[in-house]
Amino acid sequence: MRVGYIGLGKMGANQVRRLLGGGHEVCGYDRSADVVKELAGEGMQPADSVEDLAAKLDSPRIFWMLVPQGDPIDNTITALKSKISPGDIIVDGGNSNFKDSMRRAAALKEHGIHYLDIGTSGGVWGLEFGYCMMIGGDKSAFQTVEPLLKTLAPKDGYLYIGASGSGHYVKMIHNGIEYALMQAYAEGFDLLEACQFDVDMPAVADLWNHGSVIRSWLLELGARALKEDPKLSELEGWVNDSGMGRWTAHESIDLSVPAPTITAALFARFRSRRSNTFSDRFLSALRNQFGGHAVKEAK
Amino acid sequence: MRVGYIGLGKMGANQVRRLLGGGHEVCGYDRSADVVKELAGEGMQPADSVEDLAAKLDSPRIFWMLVPQGDPIDNTITALKSKISPGDIIVDGGNSNFKDSMRRAAALKEHGIHYLDIGTSGGVWGLEFGYCMMIGGDKSAFQTVEPLLKTLAPKDGYLYIGASGSGHYVKMIHNGIEYALMQAYAEGFDLLEACQFDVDMPAVADLWNHGSVIRSWLLELGARALKEDPKLSELEGWVNDSGMGRWTAHESIDLSVPAPTITAALFARFRSRRSNTFSDRFLSALRNQFGGHAVKEAK
Repeated sequence: MRVGYIGLGKMGANQVRRLLGGGHEVCGYDRSADVVKELAGEGMQPADSVEDLAAKLDSPRIFWMLVPQGDPIDNTITALKSKISPGDIIVDGGNSNFKDSMRRAAALKEHGIHYLDIGTSGGVWGLEFGYCMMIGGDKSAFQTVEPLLKTLAPKDGYLYIGASGSGHYVKMIHNGIEYALMQAYAEGFDLLEACQFDVDMPAVADLWNHGSVIRSWLLELGARALKEDPKLSELEGWVNDSGMGRWTAHESIDLSVPAPTITAALFARFRSRRSNTFSDRFLSALRNQFGGHAVKEAK
Repeated sequence: MRVGYIGLGKMGANQVRRLLGGGHEVCGYDRSADVVKELAGEGMQPADSVEDLAAKLDSPRIFWMLVPQGDPIDNTITALKSKISPGDIIVDGGNSNFKDSMRRAAALKEHGIHYLDIGTSGGVWGLEFGYCMMIGGDKSAFQTVEPLLKTLAPKDGYLYIGASGSGHYVKMIHNGIEYALMQAYAEGFDLLEACQFDVDMPAVADLWNHGSVIRSWLLELGARALKEDPKLSELEGWVNDSGMGRWTAHESIDLSVPAPTITAALFARFRSRRSNTFSDRFLSALRNQFGGHAVKEAK
């Protein structure tokens, strides 16, 4: 079927490629003319603006946004608004906050526009293996875009979750779990690296993927990284986060449901970006105050 | 090759079955005559004591222990001691503390006995898929038992780690990671269960195993459990632990290497076994003391 893509970064470009490979017609726009040109060379119909894209699709149009969450999504919706008609479908295929998706869906519904929030997992490997997709919004709109989902996802790899926001909600929880899973492996290998035995860590990571209880795709990626660089010495231990772990932690607080490993994993990332913290200096000051304990003076 | 098994519980019995299926000769002893009889019916040569088992093997003998960690292991070694000869090999295939394994290996080495600590993962599924095995001890003894490992493990599923204790050490870290992985999924599904959307959790668990970043064997087991009982209402939320998570936490302290998610997961299990704790009552008392906050009185 025919779909208009807005945002052709790593995720968007690879989804377009997978759709083209599956026989769909894709018209695409990105702020970068270079990437539009590149994908045009692979069979995508290029558009030079959101308005141009809208003009190149027939009603009911399907717009699939893969732009950063927050203002870029709202700005894209604003740009589309005057060009679209009742019955058209806008998909947010990125990592938006589920509350934003609920708000946008409600606002667009007043204009007869369907809005789907589709949480998507799979990263750069999705092109090859397919994307795992969690869909929230009108069920009828989901059914309309289902042929695209069948191509984008692996077998059994998409699911209609429910009301608007639920797709991004389930994806948020997925990412919260991901934070803690990653941190669990990270702590285990940290201990192996520090221990009294001379452990061949790339070999152990690979071993654990052969019959152990902790085998997983993340561990396969870990084994791959350790094989390339066993001490990970080419990396700095500075770990960013892109928001969904924070939202999961907020949700844990809003629901009064404890999430100790997920929040610990989030805080471990924050800590990785700080050293010689005020907290550390405060602790040193207190130890010195009450016990006269030796402290390190600032250089 | 020929091997003597001591301890035919779930793990031992299934390993014997896998070895018999692989063409090895197994002689086995267990305190329970019933299980010995059952396995004898499947082709195992029965022994009615540890001494009888020793008499039925030829030097260099291989004894494979799958008995509970702690005293049962030491008692078995004591029972074997007068019956064995230099060059014999004793394997501890269970979940012993790596420090105990180091001590036992050193003590047996004085008598010319090889001691291997083989951490084993795979649980009740090992019979079908094979066991993931981590081996510590003399390399020559490892090489002697390697034909057994080839049968017990799946392809690429065993690894010689290094010095005595290292096999159980790596298995301990594996289990520490496992605690945090399990807790991560548990927290995620707890949030999904409590949230404002009506999420089909068995379907989501299954979905996430199709192309998502958090796909894993543990999640496959989780999907299976949720499919059988979506609200898990047939279980009580009381979670036991069998020691290796504690040892990982101890090791984190001994090495001064933080393991926030592993320890949080361990503490979550402790918490699951306590309610109306002194800690909770103490917090209530303090809130009441300084703020006159409403408290619940004991019934």
